[in-house]
Amino acid sequence: MLRLWTNARVITGQSEQIHPETVDALCDNGRIVQVAPGIDAPGAEVVDCGGALLTPALVDCHTHLVFGGDRAREFELRLEGASYEQIAREGGGIASTMAATRALTVEELVETALPRLDHLLAEGVGTVEIKSGYGLDIEAELNMLRAARRLGQLRPLRVVTTWLAAHALPPAYKGRAAAYIQEVAIAGLDRALTEGLVDAVDGFCEGIAFSVDELEPLFAHAAALGVPIKLHAEQLSRSGGTLLAAKYGALSADHVEYANAEDAAAMAAAGSVAVLLPGAFYTLRETQSPPVAAFRAAGVPMALATDCNPGTSPVTSVLLTMNMGATLFRLTVPECFAAVTRHGAQALGLQNKTGRIAPGMSADFALWDVDSVALLVNRIGFNPLKARVFKGEYV
Amino acid sequence: MLRLWTNARVITGQSEQIHPETVDALCDNGRIVQVAPGIDAPGAEVVDCGGALLTPALVDCHTHLVFGGDRAREFELRLEGASYEQIAREGGGIASTMAATRALTVEELVETALPRLDHLLAEGVGTVEIKSGYGLDIEAELNMLRAARRLGQLRPLRVVTTWLAAHALPPAYKGRAAAYIQEVAIAGLDRALTEGLVDAVDGFCEGIAFSVDELEPLFAHAAALGVPIKLHAEQLSRSGGTLLAAKYGALSADHVEYANAEDAAAMAAAGSVAVLLPGAFYTLRETQSPPVAAFRAAGVPMALATDCNPGTSPVTSVLLTMNMGATLFRLTVPECFAAVTRHGAQALGLQNKTGRIAPGMSADFALWDVDSVALLVNRIGFNPLKARVFKGEYV
Ligand SMILES: [Zn+2]
Ligand SMILES: [Zn+2]
Repeated sequence: MLRLWTNARVITGQSEQIHPETVDALCDNGRIVQVAPGIDAPGAEVVDCGGALLTPALVDCHTHLVFGGDRAREFELRLEGASYEQIAREGGGIASTMAATRALTVEELVETALPRLDHLLAEGVGTVEIKSGYGLDIEAELNMLRAARRLGQLRPLRVVTTWLAAHALPPAYKGRAAAYIQEVAIAGLDRALTEGLVDAVDGFCEGIAFSVDELEPLFAHAAALGVPIKLHAEQLSRSGGTLLAAKYGALSADHVEYANAEDAAAMAAAGSVAVLLPGAFYTLRETQSPPVAAFRAAGVPMALATDCNPGTSPVTSVLLTMNMGATLFRLTVPECFAAVTRHGAQALGLQNKTGRIAPGMSADFALWDVDSVALLVNRIGFNPLKARVFKGEYV
Repeated sequence: MLRLWTNARVITGQSEQIHPETVDALCDNGRIVQVAPGIDAPGAEVVDCGGALLTPALVDCHTHLVFGGDRAREFELRLEGASYEQIAREGGGIASTMAATRALTVEELVETALPRLDHLLAEGVGTVEIKSGYGLDIEAELNMLRAARRLGQLRPLRVVTTWLAAHALPPAYKGRAAAYIQEVAIAGLDRALTEGLVDAVDGFCEGIAFSVDELEPLFAHAAALGVPIKLHAEQLSRSGGTLLAAKYGALSADHVEYANAEDAAAMAAAGSVAVLLPGAFYTLRETQSPPVAAFRAAGVPMALATDCNPGTSPVTSVLLTMNMGATLFRLTVPECFAAVTRHGAQALGLQNKTGRIAPGMSADFALWDVDSVALLVNRIGFNPLKARVFKGEYV
């Protein structure tokens, strides 16, 4: 079915350019076939966009959207001055999310995640990545990704799933990280792949999580199976994760506050995207900003994502994430916009499917009631979305 | 008309206590007459709240919601490294907002402010303070407050207006601050009062705006007329504004990052509220936090507000403002909640009208689809409002 999107001010997202163009977009069965001024398409259904700003639908390329419980009590205690030890004694931290997640069925995981997902969709998001990583045993990790896949059926959006069993070492494996990687992260990956639950493999490389040496067998295994790699790297310290990720041609290295010019060069060579997560930086009151200048110099594409998770980034706004990218990390407006469109798509290996308005791409659009992209980034707590289009349909 | 609100988990906001109570609220013609468990009220219409969390409607006690234009281009330029001089040369800064504001009619000011107001209302706000301060001549200042009053008629909420002609010195008065105060701020105040446009008088005491000596004649005039005082004070430096405000028994001193223990003591003695504005702190990337410990020690009530304005705080979320109060200023959860309910009301002299659920107060409620107040503060970019009630009516 041919459909012609017209009377829009279009940001194609093909380049750094963020000034609206007066072009039409012709779509065939949800795929863009032509983008040009004044397209004449006899027989096409014409959609008048009423002069709205039309952009690619947004991409949230790093979330932990599926989880049980919340960490609000811990947030409260911390503000009252409780130490990490006190909070751990009260059962807080990632262990509490693990317990709450394991306690839920797939249906319950879906139900608790839906309001969060709906907040993202209400801001024009068309593609969301969702990681496992709070189950920390095979069955619970599988359940998280089953819930993620189900979310993608319940709502009109593209869900990308990431196997993140190597997120934290569960209490049962204390002191046996290598065994956990073999018995849960690697063995579970094989099962998850069989079930079609895995689009990428991720890990958390940090002093408080896993080392480069512990993670490498997982990545070697994933690479041998042709599964793309991502990595939480250099968030709280420089521990070498980015170089490991680059060695395996990672789609992205994420957080990367402590990455340096050597890391940036390796990422550029590997074609990895730097996924910046300002919501976590803000929530943790970090002071070390990611090396944006080094990424620019090396030509590393930068993405921004919510990192939606109950503890360190309880964020469900991509618009606010753009503002934080600008305010906290000093990304320019065009950089913030590319970060949640084409660079976000690239961080998921979807650069030829979504994130740009160009022939061959999925017709995933957001229509906005604002004059400029700068206003989307500048405003805080304001959502001017007029309509969302997924695969050529208003949704 | 009697109406009984029942089956709610109620946060009355009467004290620091933020754990829900199982009480009913009986209202007569939009005013609360009784709050108690299991009220028996024959003849009353019964509203079943379905177990929702019921709190006082929120109060945004410091906004510049009415203005023309935006400052997104300036935001863009600054991220690209432009200096303040370059931006001023491009016509940026407060002068650009003055020009854009002067260019609009009252109706146009209303129309541009409405989407911002609607975002606040969608988060359960029932009372909004709106300042003049971008007109900077008498007629344009009056128009801003006429627009504010009109907004209060167009939507079901309480609008409180503040005369802020002493916001900045317009180019026409360069070097003649005292004359501006006399000819515009004071002369205009008299006209605005005649028209019923003024609930309070405000100023901006800062090196880049007005000094204590320049502002005092305005405050003396307002005090003689019985008009309450507020003041933008100690935002970028300690310039003595808080002591001036306290001398005139101000409702509030606002921003107050650079206030000290002496200022806190004077505020406590004067009964002034400290209105903290984390959106501006965040946007300007300030590093000096307000003296929260001194306010606590002196017993100064702390409010939080959006400071919604196009330049330094383009914020239209009270929920996010609470999160920033916690994350950036380390207010506790009960402090953040009081800050946007009873302390916000007190900063407007409305402590006996709204901001609490108690006999004699207006039935201004917010109903939330969350378990706890902590979740309202903890989450970022998430709005769980179920319904808003203003003067006893669902709106
Ligand atoms: Zn993460
Ligand atoms: Zn202000």
